[in-house]
Amino acid sequence: MTDDSAAVGAAPSAAHEVQRLLRPDLRGRTPYGAPQLDVPVRLNTNENSYPVPQVVVDAVLRALSGDMATLNRYPDREFTELRKALTAYLEKQSGVAVTPEQVWAGNGSNEVLSHVVQAFGGHGRVALGFTPSYSMHPIISETLGTTWVDGLRSAATGPDAFDLTPESAARQAREHDPSIVFLCSPNNPTGTALPFEVIGAVLDAAPNALVVVDEAYAEFARPGTRSALTLLADHPRLVVTRTMSKAFAFAGGRLGYLVAAPELVDALRLVRLPYHLSSPTQTIARVALEHADVMLGTVEVIKHQRDRIVERLAELGARPVASDSNFVLFGGLRDEKAAWQALLDEGVLVRDMGIAGHLRVTAGDPHETTAFLEAMTRLAPTHVDRQEPTA
Amino acid sequence: MTDDSAAVGAAPSAAHEVQRLLRPDLRGRTPYGAPQLDVPVRLNTNENSYPVPQVVVDAVLRALSGDMATLNRYPDREFTELRKALTAYLEKQSGVAVTPEQVWAGNGSNEVLSHVVQAFGGHGRVALGFTPSYSMHPIISETLGTTWVDGLRSAATGPDAFDLTPESAARQAREHDPSIVFLCSPNNPTGTALPFEVIGAVLDAAPNALVVVDEAYAEFARPGTRSALTLLADHPRLVVTRTMSKAFAFAGGRLGYLVAAPELVDALRLVRLPYHLSSPTQTIARVALEHADVMLGTVEVIKHQRDRIVERLAELGARPVASDSNFVLFGGLRDEKAAWQALLDEGVLVRDMGIAGHLRVTAGDPHETTAFLEAMTRLAPTHVDRQEPTA
Repeated sequence: MTDDSAAVGAAPSAAHEVQRLLRPDLRGRTPYGAPQLDVPVRLNTNENSYPVPQVVVDAVLRALSGDMATLNRYPDREFTELRKALTAYLEKQSGVAVTPEQVWAGNGSNEVLSHVVQAFGGHGRVALGFTPSYSMHPIISETLGTTWVDGLRSAATGPDAFDLTPESAARQAREHDPSIVFLCSPNNPTGTALPFEVIGAVLDAAPNALVVVDEAYAEFARPGTRSALTLLADHPRLVVTRTMSKAFAFAGGRLGYLVAAPELVDALRLVRLPYHLSSPTQTIARVALEHADVMLGTVEVIKHQRDRIVERLAELGARPVASDSNFVLFGGLRDEKAAWQALLDEGVLVRDMGIAGHLRVTAGDPHETTAFLEAMTRLAPTHVDRQEPTA
Repeated sequence: MTDDSAAVGAAPSAAHEVQRLLRPDLRGRTPYGAPQLDVPVRLNTNENSYPVPQVVVDAVLRALSGDMATLNRYPDREFTELRKALTAYLEKQSGVAVTPEQVWAGNGSNEVLSHVVQAFGGHGRVALGFTPSYSMHPIISETLGTTWVDGLRSAATGPDAFDLTPESAARQAREHDPSIVFLCSPNNPTGTALPFEVIGAVLDAAPNALVVVDEAYAEFARPGTRSALTLLADHPRLVVTRTMSKAFAFAGGRLGYLVAAPELVDALRLVRLPYHLSSPTQTIARVALEHADVMLGTVEVIKHQRDRIVERLAELGARPVASDSNFVLFGGLRDEKAAWQALLDEGVLVRDMGIAGHLRVTAGDPHETTAFLEAMTRLAPTHVDRQEPTA
């Protein structure tokens, strides 16, 4: 093959060349992508609907104005001040004392998850999750060359269909000898709490695995829910991930983090891209964390909206799944794709997770929640396969 | 194995467990890390020594103050406005017209390079580079499971030791049938220009490869140096990467980007983490690009400092390599580690690249350059293996 082909106009097309050279297992895939549509009521990505309070905006801008002139310099590669701020926040929120050496952060929890998969997964290794769960767990695993095994949540049907028991999780973990197991507490997209005993059962049943407990929605859990953070001191194979994107109302700032043994965190430096957290990202997140009380001030009202959604959907004959999160998965739809479109036509964007008969809706502010519930009230006669209300 | 071991205090140590579970090929590695030391004169990471001008700081803060309240929402996943700004900048800087669909960005050029390697490399595939070159090329390739082949630059010794000829590059490309070939124009850490013909020769000799031309330092090249951007229209397997970290004085903002065929850029969406660019990152970079003339205002004075360094080091009997960048690699040192420490003791931090007898120094502002050259003048009698000046 010579370059002459290009000169005479017989060059292969770019589309052809890209497909030819792409990693074979990526061919035919479509990228992750919740639609980003400009509609009045956006309840599809579990954002916090409340804007960042002005007092925090002002504090962030003050801090940035001091930093901005030095953007010619690389950021602190070890994000020392941010780690301290995350440590202080975790202790306050969960009551568990951790050290900065146990904390790692990235541009969203997806990035810290990808560091874990890069360091402890890879070609010939297996990652196990229990479907349906966070859709990025398999995407991150597979795009990084790790074999994904789609575990099952429950053999039950009905309201328990999305529960995961210690026995079932342990049996599947033993069967597949994974290098990484993903648990989600509470689970997304179902909203269901994770029985605390599942974590220990999986650690026990998968002796060659890191067990990742994704606590992205932990701040919305019912009072008294125990965090996997409480297990860290005794379990060097445990990783707990968190994010500022949900309760913390900081999705645009992109800051996810994890907590684990210092030695495990240290190993992630082998795969992180140096200077992965920009100076503004470090500053903005640090200042926001210093205002944690203000930033989290909306959590209770959001939990109330979530409970309103569950109650009203049940009245409408849909089957909402019990939720510990800021969203509700609900079933009982005749055709979830038609219902999704009908809601969109009413100006309400929710999420089709690919689960037959189900959609997922974020608990927004009271107005958004009302708009969604009023739309559902209008649509229910057509779209809900009505059963007797469960409440 | 049961969990009882933890209860009786016989749990394996975290260090042991992490080593046991780590990907085997990562064991024993050390993370990338130029020392981040607090010394008066930092000339080790090829930053631009000039702070961001106040007019740009003010414009950035104005733009952020409008965005900050909406950080509760996820950023634009496709960073549309930023892509337009990069497109406009590229056309202005290089004279080559590109479209936003040809542009892709990440948190530093390392991230866009990692997207390329993830999508087009992987297990069983080979990436080829010509050493010494940018040290992250092999690190990114290997941490993503791609086999790295360390190609040679030149069989010559003396001033031509770091040159890469089209014949040598093509021969090595044919030999290894790589999936990705990295070229660096100008090369880092040597500063040497890449003969333009190398690009076409490698495209021709490696028909199954993406050819990545890393132009991180392109803005410092001599007038008339042709960019690989000029080849894009005819070569769907060509990728040109750039960064705002160097000439653009924006290392702390973390914005790297690439230009390629739209179909190739589209394929990178299969491996990118969704919302990988935060809203502030998009805003800050966009506003900085709108002030490109101001941001690049220091390039000429930096080039002058670079030329001062080359000239003076030659007078001192060291062997500086001809540079098209904002740094100079120089040889002729009796012991580069001893010279590195001696410079540090003088308050000047430079870079030991692991090349025998050589160190790399960034061209800073005139004061920093003078401080470095005065220190070298004091140290030369001890540390330079003096030859007759070449100039």
